[in-house]
Amino acid sequence: MSPSRPELLILGVDPGSHQTGWGLIGASGSDLRVIDYGLIRLPGKESLSGRLLILYEELTAVIERTRPDEVAVEEVYMARNAKSALTLGHARGVILLACARSDVIPAEYPANTVKQAVLGHGGAAATKERVAFMVRAILGLEEIPEPADITDALACAICHAHRREVPR
Amino acid sequence: MSPSRPELLILGVDPGSHQTGWGLIGASGSDLRVIDYGLIRLPGKESLSGRLLILYEELTAVIERTRPDEVAVEEVYMARNAKSALTLGHARGVILLACARSDVIPAEYPANTVKQAVLGHGGAAATKERVAFMVRAILGLEEIPEPADITDALACAICHAHRREVPR
Repeated sequence: MSPSRPELLILGVDPGSHQTGWGLIGASGSDLRVIDYGLIRLPGKESLSGRLLILYEELTAVIERTRPDEVAVEEVYMARNAKSALTLGHARGVILLACARSDVIPAEYPANTVKQAVLGHGGAAATKERVAFMVRAILGLEEIPEPADITDALACAICHAHRREVPR
Repeated sequence: MSPSRPELLILGVDPGSHQTGWGLIGASGSDLRVIDYGLIRLPGKESLSGRLLILYEELTAVIERTRPDEVAVEEVYMARNAKSALTLGHARGVILLACARSDVIPAEYPANTVKQAVLGHGGAAATKERVAFMVRAILGLEEIPEPADITDALACAICHAHRREVPR
């Protein structure tokens, strides 16, 4: 935690088939600060491959612009059925590929682990609203970024800052 | 079906989380011939993002080398559970992205439609062995290519040759 310790840039990503949230934080020891965040929308009028292309290109642009040291991707909520899991898997595969092609190895965290990292507990009581509230408090944000895909992505980055095993 | 009609190159792809088969056929009207086929293996010792990177790079190399006019991708067999559907979705997302980045719009066919195209029927009696047998007969191959991921990919290309709606 010495002041000379360099800040680690962590990009959190919350994959979705319609929109994918991302959030970049800086971690100096236990000090965390928000640097940037955003949302990648995948237009419903595009073909599936067209949507995946948009996701890939926009996320690659974010990675190249922000140059994170590490990327943390939320493992998708276990979808109700095989069909929605398959659809979500398409988006997630493209996100992991964008990381690999930019030479960052993504860390993956189950949704429940992410919730525990910001709330101290997971489970049904850990709503998106509570996650968003705690993300705002932890990062000292004036407002809660919306939609929840962004606060989920920031929560994933916070989770990685707490749990990453490899020291820089 | 005039002799001057140019041959259409169709690449069939059968996505899998461990290995992905591909097969290239030439279609001149109803005359079909095999041009090339192969298998992309994804080493289990690699990380998930590392496997997706191999799949993306090898499939992109196949597309750039063979320059197909059209690509047909099998819609994955509806997996038993959400977890395996999610894993398969990762591979399929990367395959669709490789097509989009190479400027070919992939056509997608459900496994049952592919079976019907080569067997005349789908359902439980349409085993991989029967599909392989008919692929060999339709394309006039001396031997049945192995493993079944390759004959499934060739079957998908045959299905597209029969069903494609947009004339060249």
